[in-house]
Amino acid sequence: MLESDDMERYPLITFLSDYGRDDGYDSACEAVLASLSPATRVLHVSHGVDVGDIRDGATILSRVAPLGPPAVHLAVIDPGVGTSRRPVAVCAERGDVLVGPDNGLLMPALATLGGATTAWDLDPVRVRSQAGLPPGQLSHTFHGRDLFAPAAALLANGRPPALLGSAIDPSSLVRLPEPRLERDDGHIRAEVIEIDRFGNVALCLSLDQLPEGLRHLEVQVVDEPDVFWNLHVVTTFSDLQPGELGMLQDSWGHASLALNGASAAEVLGARLGGMVHLSLL
Amino acid sequence: MLESDDMERYPLITFLSDYGRDDGYDSACEAVLASLSPATRVLHVSHGVDVGDIRDGATILSRVAPLGPPAVHLAVIDPGVGTSRRPVAVCAERGDVLVGPDNGLLMPALATLGGATTAWDLDPVRVRSQAGLPPGQLSHTFHGRDLFAPAAALLANGRPPALLGSAIDPSSLVRLPEPRLERDDGHIRAEVIEIDRFGNVALCLSLDQLPEGLRHLEVQVVDEPDVFWNLHVVTTFSDLQPGELGMLQDSWGHASLALNGASAAEVLGARLGGMVHLSLL
Amino acid sequence: MLESDDMERYPLITFLSDYGRDDGYDSACEAVLASLSPATRVLHVSHGVDVGDIRDGATILSRVAPLGPPAVHLAVIDPGVGTSRRPVAVCAERGDVLVGPDNGLLMPALATLGGATTAWDLDPVRVRSQAGLPPGQLSHTFHGRDLFAPAAALLANGRPPALLGSAIDPSSLVRLPEPRLERDDGHIRAEVIEIDRFGNVALCLSLDQLPEGLRHLEVQVVDEPDVFWNLHVVTTFSDLQPGELGMLQDSWGHASLALNGASAAEVLGARLGGMVHLSLL
Repeated sequence: MLESDDMERYPLITFLSDYGRDDGYDSACEAVLASLSPATRVLHVSHGVDVGDIRDGATILSRVAPLGPPAVHLAVIDPGVGTSRRPVAVCAERGDVLVGPDNGLLMPALATLGGATTAWDLDPVRVRSQAGLPPGQLSHTFHGRDLFAPAAALLANGRPPALLGSAIDPSSLVRLPEPRLERDDGHIRAEVIEIDRFGNVALCLSLDQLPEGLRHLEVQVVDEPDVFWNLHVVTTFSDLQPGELGMLQDSWGHASLALNGASAAEVLGARLGGMVHLSLL
Repeated sequence: MLESDDMERYPLITFLSDYGRDDGYDSACEAVLASLSPATRVLHVSHGVDVGDIRDGATILSRVAPLGPPAVHLAVIDPGVGTSRRPVAVCAERGDVLVGPDNGLLMPALATLGGATTAWDLDPVRVRSQAGLPPGQLSHTFHGRDLFAPAAALLANGRPPALLGSAIDPSSLVRLPEPRLERDDGHIRAEVIEIDRFGNVALCLSLDQLPEGLRHLEVQVVDEPDVFWNLHVVTTFSDLQPGELGMLQDSWGHASLALNGASAAEVLGARLGGMVHLSLL
Repeated sequence: MLESDDMERYPLITFLSDYGRDDGYDSACEAVLASLSPATRVLHVSHGVDVGDIRDGATILSRVAPLGPPAVHLAVIDPGVGTSRRPVAVCAERGDVLVGPDNGLLMPALATLGGATTAWDLDPVRVRSQAGLPPGQLSHTFHGRDLFAPAAALLANGRPPALLGSAIDPSSLVRLPEPRLERDDGHIRAEVIEIDRFGNVALCLSLDQLPEGLRHLEVQVVDEPDVFWNLHVVTTFSDLQPGELGMLQDSWGHASLALNGASAAEVLGARLGGMVHLSLL
């Protein structure tokens, strides 16, 4: 099955990984992109995700991808590299194409781009052959360079995904478990879904899910069971006194624990993936 | 008041913030730029400024901006986000436009670009409307994405600033206090204005302000009052023996304390914004 | 001696340094590039090399450069800045031009690009004059901004290197000592040539240099003499149990010590430039 030849060319490839920016892994991939698709701009989403943290990478990609124009999104957090996990390309309703390992990394971004329309199990031999690369030279450890970046460049050039692999059912794509959120009378237990450079602690919770007019909460980090914090619900950071802990709606619509001028995560001892217990006062 | 419609389009947007490069804040802004002004190149000046350090960000921007071509300079170190601090666009004599919060961040760069000619208090509703974004959806915590990046993209596209806000008097823009420099007979106390990756400690002082022919100094970091260091005035790093402390004119014209092959800041215990006491021998 | 005027223009400049990405040194150079060669794309290879680590920078550049298209490669790890070390531009057989200090940094990349064809001792006065910069304003501490970036931009624009300096014999270029590799019956001592973000410890050794069919090794880090580790030779990370140490062929063809899900370097106490002792079992 071949798609039509006049697919849109994409002027932009976004690129997210856990490669860091120091060792040349990110730039090796960008060099492959520049070689195969020289006119396409590359936007680095993040390479500083914790090593192997698929969930965190998925969250960041899902936030950034819809802000830009329809693009090819190359995302490689791939602890299963060299195993039988599938390399995939997935087309989204908005017109984007996402390329990466089938380990859940792409799914939250797909949801923000209107959902998946078609998906493809990438064939390394066909991708490398289409890219003019020696088909046999696929490493066991660096599919970002050897498979995913070539596929992303070809897709940005308008090459139909059907030339790069076999169609698969989008509903077969691996999904991450949902972050945990438990509620009962007056109590909420919510998973920490993001800790940023400022030390803000974002929860799997929207302020809309709290009782209207709520102004005070008691917070307990589940790993630190004997410590309780009282906090106010506020609008922005500077509504807090220096050193005061509060909860606000963060830039992505989540309830977030914040300290004015310091790291809430550090003070609370919160960690990504941990649970926070809220008592509504 | 409308400006002429044939304003120059800018091929370059520079971008400085304290967002870091790991959490997707910088790339969220870049995605907005890519969406609204796809052909404009983005040059990342730095996103690694200490959180909320307006002075340090201002210093770096003032050094980098004049080295490039006239551009739109997007700068967001914004501890007052969500408060009444003004969002501004300021046109510089050289032809640049600077966009960011009115908290002093833009002023040193404006000075290196010939000074401000006109300034504008950005109206979020008008900026978002001109950008085709929902006018009401301005977060309280991320004006980089919601206001400043859209404004920068529109200005790079040649949109007149008068369409984005109201003219204000450039002399009303907030200024940072000057770094401290005190001199009396044989003694100088100078503020540390920069500590870089190499551990060089730049002072608010030019070598021209030292007596001609001076070759030796005694240095004391004011926070470390009982420790005195003797040092030579040299020309470049390798004029120093390994482990030897010296003073030289740094790459930006400032007197800087340096160690050959190690961090002067670490050895001295110097910190950004602290004072250094120099005794001329 | 002038070269022909119709030299190829390069659409890409790659840029490697030990400047970091926080202090504005990397972006100062990029601003110079954007000013002198506005249409040329810049690909940041790495700026996170350890300060002054010429060998590590050379390794990374040699890996990334051949993956991209022929380009100008700007590389500045320059502990000898301001001394008599030569600033050079070197043309490679593949069509690339490499620009940086003559301290060995460029040589491994040159080898991967087919070797040097011509080399030039850059004359700061001629480079700055050709670039339209004040010839006298060459700092003693930042030749990346003042000399190498202008030279790279001019070369990308197609300016013949003969206009920027004097021809020198490529065989006179400084070479780094080879990494150490010692072998005798059943024992190998190999230098650590790379430690990456994942904690993988790459050795100056190829798996082809081990006896065919070898599956078990004993490893000793020479700085940690009383600790011995038994390990398996495997194909990829996930062939190892969590916490298990192994050896595999890394993404660049080197034997590498790896831990599934943790840092082998940290567990072993290995450091870049140190020696590892392997006993073949």
